[in-house]
Amino acid sequence: MSWNTFGRVLRFTTWGESHGPALGAVVDGCPPGLMLSESDIQPYLDARRPGQSKFTTQRQEPDAVRILSGIFEGRTTGTPISLMIENVDQRSKDYSEVAKAYRPGHADYAYDAKYGFRDYRGGGRSSARETAARVAAGGVARKAIPEVSIVAYVSEIGGDAIDRSNIDLSEIDRNPFFCPDPAAATRWESLVDDARKAGSSLGAVVECIATGVPAGWGAPIYAKLDADLAAAMMGINAVKGVEIGDGFEAAKLTGETNADPMRPGEDGPQFTANHAGGIAGGISTGQPVVVRVAFKPTSSILTPVETIDRDGNAAEIRTKGRHDPCVGIRGVPVVEAMMALVLADHKLLHRAQCG
Amino acid sequence: MSWNTFGRVLRFTTWGESHGPALGAVVDGCPPGLMLSESDIQPYLDARRPGQSKFTTQRQEPDAVRILSGIFEGRTTGTPISLMIENVDQRSKDYSEVAKAYRPGHADYAYDAKYGFRDYRGGGRSSARETAARVAAGGVARKAIPEVSIVAYVSEIGGDAIDRSNIDLSEIDRNPFFCPDPAAATRWESLVDDARKAGSSLGAVVECIATGVPAGWGAPIYAKLDADLAAAMMGINAVKGVEIGDGFEAAKLTGETNADPMRPGEDGPQFTANHAGGIAGGISTGQPVVVRVAFKPTSSILTPVETIDRDGNAAEIRTKGRHDPCVGIRGVPVVEAMMALVLADHKLLHRAQCG
Amino acid sequence: MSWNTFGRVLRFTTWGESHGPALGAVVDGCPPGLMLSESDIQPYLDARRPGQSKFTTQRQEPDAVRILSGIFEGRTTGTPISLMIENVDQRSKDYSEVAKAYRPGHADYAYDAKYGFRDYRGGGRSSARETAARVAAGGVARKAIPEVSIVAYVSEIGGDAIDRSNIDLSEIDRNPFFCPDPAAATRWESLVDDARKAGSSLGAVVECIATGVPAGWGAPIYAKLDADLAAAMMGINAVKGVEIGDGFEAAKLTGETNADPMRPGEDGPQFTANHAGGIAGGISTGQPVVVRVAFKPTSSILTPVETIDRDGNAAEIRTKGRHDPCVGIRGVPVVEAMMALVLADHKLLHRAQCG
Amino acid sequence: MSWNTFGRVLRFTTWGESHGPALGAVVDGCPPGLMLSESDIQPYLDARRPGQSKFTTQRQEPDAVRILSGIFEGRTTGTPISLMIENVDQRSKDYSEVAKAYRPGHADYAYDAKYGFRDYRGGGRSSARETAARVAAGGVARKAIPEVSIVAYVSEIGGDAIDRSNIDLSEIDRNPFFCPDPAAATRWESLVDDARKAGSSLGAVVECIATGVPAGWGAPIYAKLDADLAAAMMGINAVKGVEIGDGFEAAKLTGETNADPMRPGEDGPQFTANHAGGIAGGISTGQPVVVRVAFKPTSSILTPVETIDRDGNAAEIRTKGRHDPCVGIRGVPVVEAMMALVLADHKLLHRAQCG
Repeated sequence: MSWNTFGRVLRFTTWGESHGPALGAVVDGCPPGLMLSESDIQPYLDARRPGQSKFTTQRQEPDAVRILSGIFEGRTTGTPISLMIENVDQRSKDYSEVAKAYRPGHADYAYDAKYGFRDYRGGGRSSARETAARVAAGGVARKAIPEVSIVAYVSEIGGDAIDRSNIDLSEIDRNPFFCPDPAAATRWESLVDDARKAGSSLGAVVECIATGVPAGWGAPIYAKLDADLAAAMMGINAVKGVEIGDGFEAAKLTGETNADPMRPGEDGPQFTANHAGGIAGGISTGQPVVVRVAFKPTSSILTPVETIDRDGNAAEIRTKGRHDPCVGIRGVPVVEAMMALVLADHKLLHRAQCG
Repeated sequence: MSWNTFGRVLRFTTWGESHGPALGAVVDGCPPGLMLSESDIQPYLDARRPGQSKFTTQRQEPDAVRILSGIFEGRTTGTPISLMIENVDQRSKDYSEVAKAYRPGHADYAYDAKYGFRDYRGGGRSSARETAARVAAGGVARKAIPEVSIVAYVSEIGGDAIDRSNIDLSEIDRNPFFCPDPAAATRWESLVDDARKAGSSLGAVVECIATGVPAGWGAPIYAKLDADLAAAMMGINAVKGVEIGDGFEAAKLTGETNADPMRPGEDGPQFTANHAGGIAGGISTGQPVVVRVAFKPTSSILTPVETIDRDGNAAEIRTKGRHDPCVGIRGVPVVEAMMALVLADHKLLHRAQCG
Repeated sequence: MSWNTFGRVLRFTTWGESHGPALGAVVDGCPPGLMLSESDIQPYLDARRPGQSKFTTQRQEPDAVRILSGIFEGRTTGTPISLMIENVDQRSKDYSEVAKAYRPGHADYAYDAKYGFRDYRGGGRSSARETAARVAAGGVARKAIPEVSIVAYVSEIGGDAIDRSNIDLSEIDRNPFFCPDPAAATRWESLVDDARKAGSSLGAVVECIATGVPAGWGAPIYAKLDADLAAAMMGINAVKGVEIGDGFEAAKLTGETNADPMRPGEDGPQFTANHAGGIAGGISTGQPVVVRVAFKPTSSILTPVETIDRDGNAAEIRTKGRHDPCVGIRGVPVVEAMMALVLADHKLLHRAQCG
Repeated sequence: MSWNTFGRVLRFTTWGESHGPALGAVVDGCPPGLMLSESDIQPYLDARRPGQSKFTTQRQEPDAVRILSGIFEGRTTGTPISLMIENVDQRSKDYSEVAKAYRPGHADYAYDAKYGFRDYRGGGRSSARETAARVAAGGVARKAIPEVSIVAYVSEIGGDAIDRSNIDLSEIDRNPFFCPDPAAATRWESLVDDARKAGSSLGAVVECIATGVPAGWGAPIYAKLDADLAAAMMGINAVKGVEIGDGFEAAKLTGETNADPMRPGEDGPQFTANHAGGIAGGISTGQPVVVRVAFKPTSSILTPVETIDRDGNAAEIRTKGRHDPCVGIRGVPVVEAMMALVLADHKLLHRAQCG
């Protein structure tokens, strides 16, 4: 198993540094014969792009993807699909101060401790730009699961939550926050703007729902669908918590209130609740798969923070690069992409063992 | 990759059904030359054993482990270590009602949907008894990481939380709840007893802390230490949420309040906080690794629940077997075992790439 | 990935030392619903058993297999299948001389160099008895590929080859050499008997043919069917060479003489030759898959051999245990088992990606 | 595990079609801190380049490699190293006839059977040009094993073998055949030229020797060094046989003549023979690792061959593209690269488990 390869059957390997010439992903195990072109992938990258609003990073990257292999006459051949995105806007000089001192909360110190040195420019490989490669790979994965619909949105910023009785999924694309509750979106404008001006940052919670997943995906114990989703989401930059269904709230319920009773139905059982979030015993139940992901606030804030430098002496660091006041916002397309990649992988995995 | 193998370098495969003759684990990749015998593993199984108090399942299993391979003259040879635990107390007749109807919240329906049929006795492979094999494997893993100390405890049952200013780790072994707060332990006696008598069940949160982990374990992006921990914990039966450090609370903080500033120290940097839970960018920072795991309440409750049977007709199910009013309690040794297995794996992984 | 796990989808892990209490295999990823019991596996182990004739090892092992998990009501559940074979006849004292000195040609020296010490009894894990576990696993694999027939036989012993115009597969079970040419079988009786009496040993070549393999199994480049077969066979104890189809003979042919022309046929193309051995570009062509495996002569011979001991001093070694004058003979069921395991794995692999 | 990823710790994934815009490899798990630049890799690609002599393919490709990630200030960072080679000279029109009919001996038919369609241009992914990516990856691997020297040469073409008493390794670079025997090189000039003019092709055997490999690399049973080498070599286009040490010749020897006796030596045992080819029980012994690889003759010959087309009708095919009269010649750098990749992987693997 590789350190940079994710998945069991439909697998992808990403590469590329934030300030290197390009980023990319190699997606392997994709079924043959699927229609695929750059135009299938680009929209997901555009949703993710920095510089889209004053609320996100001010770096201008077109993030244009090229498919370099694995396609013939518009269809996947079954051979590896190499995707490449070139980096255009790299302001290396913004990171000069970072070369010597460690940004608290970032992986700087940990990278140095592990490797002995690091590519400090823009966070090197620990940068969030690597997720562009994952979003591209997610575009390929969706082609393998046409029966599934995936939507993610921000459900909370800085502790301010949406009103769950006021959710309208069509609102998600109408505000800069991927927010399904228009009232919350309005509140968040000032909330995030204030944070940005203050040089501070906020955390967020992203919720992702996949409908159309049939029962039976996921395999017992170590290829559990929920375990793979947990790994996929926790592996996203800045994520500190993952929940399935009721998550930590389930810990407060009783057996009776947490149950998902079943009634007979035409196309299989009708569930009268979904506390389980669509997964039981690691296998999908046919109900919507519900995952919630907690993003911590960005550590690259513009106020000075106490730290040490490479020689172990006290230092202060104030990053001057372009940063997100709330990385969780742009985490939405990434969460969707990881949901797609894990589900597509499990569809093939299930097919491998059970036909 | 196998559906029932976990880990990348130090790997283990478990096998065995709840009501089969035995359970086991094969641990592979263990460094050679480590002292290992049954007496190193048995204590962890004893802590986990059912029938220990009136608060846990009333099934009597000695859970005696045998090491069948991989040891010579008391030391690991580097070859696979096969561990076996025989099942003694299996009351199959308690599960007769379950054969036909699906227990809501269990994997029964999902298993049938996936495989076409299932071994219904005691939950077959989805049963929590499979975790005995994991606890045994964890005993082996700890031998590979003597520099690390791992302790887990229950921090919350049914919404009732410990008082973090009143934590005494030595209390953990003095009550049936692995609880470090004696006042909470007292409250939980009636809380859990009431649930058991009512035939109900409660959820719980387990917290696990590993100290002595040096900086540098974990590798970027897809072998992130936190992602592997998330998969390991989410894969435990009944788990619905995993957090690292502040977890979902971090989503409510700002960049300033969530930062872990560093000061110079003799043996590396001194951190003044640990909101990150010991992991940044997927790599250990040298701080204690803190993981929190949410267990939902058991679905095997003694009050009837609405469900369907194999033919799709409405049915009612009331399980009469022996069940846990709070599975989270016995999840504590399992959480510790998974922490050990993941950390040991990452120690070797780091050594593979970085020497 | 584990050091002792083989396969990609249908995977197995073996464990157990030659002189430990038992050996076993855990087979994972097996499709559910297949009929399986000990009686499906035992015959393959019986064919392999030591002590069957004066031409093979004189150790008496019943090699009775038990299925400890993964079966319910006579069918595979899709969960891991644990197989166990207990060791009965272990004469440890035969190996006392071996503890101190290294047997040339065995892995003794290499094991010590790698691990720092070794379980010297009977070769520990490098013993050919480990293959009993593989043969058992092969019995499971065959259930997943009912459309395929596999037969292997010895085609050469000590340089004396069968006459390919005199092959009768029904002869294989009628002599102690798995030989399809009765004339060769007669010659081999004295050949092998002479070697045994002289305390010497002979090499052999085993040929294995799988018919019924459809076109399309195997995937480009690194999951090539022939590459996986090569690894599977080279991994068998004492194997030093593997060929597919014409093998090394192909290196002497021209493009014209090596071609496998195709003609139209009812059920797909009719090939007029099979120099390729059923595999082209790593993918099966629908023709019989033909593999040839070279076994070196056993190193455990009864005449003294010059060697060194653990302290690096000159020593002489003469093993007195029970040994095969020709391990290739008992390699036949092992070669068949590995063919089954690889083909079954590839059947599922193909299904994963291509449905 | 991925279909296009090879290796266990030091892993690489290749991508790219013969007639696509580019080829590449992502090498992962490389230790950090190694000096690496394009100039370290380019020489191996230059040795491999088509169009170098009249004896090899007449396609002109500069095969210039670019390193797109994983390097900082001239050293490996430990993150994935993405290598890319652009395709320049693609004469698609040469392959028009191939679109409809299957070239016997090629993977055309098998690919169609597997995927339903294929990229027929130049053999798509089954083309030997994919090996350029492997040679590039091999250049990275060598950096991880500076203690090892690897050399490969052609030992036989069309049945005409070198004289082993006349080997001079310095001759390898002085003729177009990587031949260490000048007399054989002279004979091969006319042999190969005659084949090319006749529109025919010849097979070859390539021998590869690695010196400096310490004892202890390789792990029991399924990560055996020889098994991994077998898979690596058999996976090279056109390979039909792999031998370690004496290979198939060992099958003709006796235990006495095949033994590698040991004598005491200063830096470990002195072996007096190397029939085993440097590997015993799957673990390196410290002796030179010797591997031999059989290449079949190219199937793309210029005389018509009987075949069928996509509709199953009889057809004739005569490829007019540019082809190798002996692919084994350019297989030499590929064999060396695979030897490097497998050895580097095993060095890290050994370090993972044994420190």
